[in-house]
Amino acid sequence: MSIVVGFIDTPEGNAAVQSAIDEAKLRSTSIVILHSMVGGGHEKGSEYLASAEAIERIEQLLSESGVEYSSHEYVRGKSPAEDIVTAAKVHDAELIVIGIRKRSATGKLLLGSNALDILHDAPVPVLCVKAG
Amino acid sequence: MSIVVGFIDTPEGNAAVQSAIDEAKLRSTSIVILHSMVGGGHEKGSEYLASAEAIERIEQLLSESGVEYSSHEYVRGKSPAEDIVTAAKVHDAELIVIGIRKRSATGKLLLGSNALDILHDAPVPVLCVKAG
Repeated sequence: MSIVVGFIDTPEGNAAVQSAIDEAKLRSTSIVILHSMVGGGHEKGSEYLASAEAIERIEQLLSESGVEYSSHEYVRGKSPAEDIVTAAKVHDAELIVIGIRKRSATGKLLLGSNALDILHDAPVPVLCVKAG
Repeated sequence: MSIVVGFIDTPEGNAAVQSAIDEAKLRSTSIVILHSMVGGGHEKGSEYLASAEAIERIEQLLSESGVEYSSHEYVRGKSPAEDIVTAAKVHDAELIVIGIRKRSATGKLLLGSNALDILHDAPVPVLCVKAG
């Protein structure tokens, strides 16, 4: 069993990784982290491309947490949502953690298409977290 | 701290209560269960009205789980989503659990407006579960 989390370098993306660490400790399980896509089949891949510094910071956070984890990149992935759902199946996940944005001051709905696709297609429960 | 879950007598509603029990055990916390609305300010309240038998079954499930819990009804509530978000604030929740439908065979998007509103307005993480 494992917890799957995709990393994007946004406040909610960082909150998702921290939440995944907390949940992994609580459930005595490991983390599968999917890093941002770097080209390949992603039309809008560059939107999700975290900097080398951000990836290094997250890897250090995971390393220092004491939780067992493995990092993966879907260089030629389909879409972030499909990659996460696939990873959940491949890695026998018990939980997926995703970051979602807070409602803006204008009340505009902000749940992105990736979050919606993950919620619809996830084979396991999805924990949705916001930035603190 | 507590876990807030709203009960609707659907496969995903029952899955949400079971998941809330599992999470409460894992986190050594209590459950706040909101029962379906019985009139009051809800235009579509009858959609969510669980039968007396269903409520009794859920109360028995909770009772037998050994988890501490309290039951609440928002007879004159605003909307199911607002009631759940309010309860999460009032009861100092650490987590909200909601049931969401599986994607249908036609691929139609099925995340309801209540689920979306809860995700947008929740002050704490939301665990989204489907029926097994």
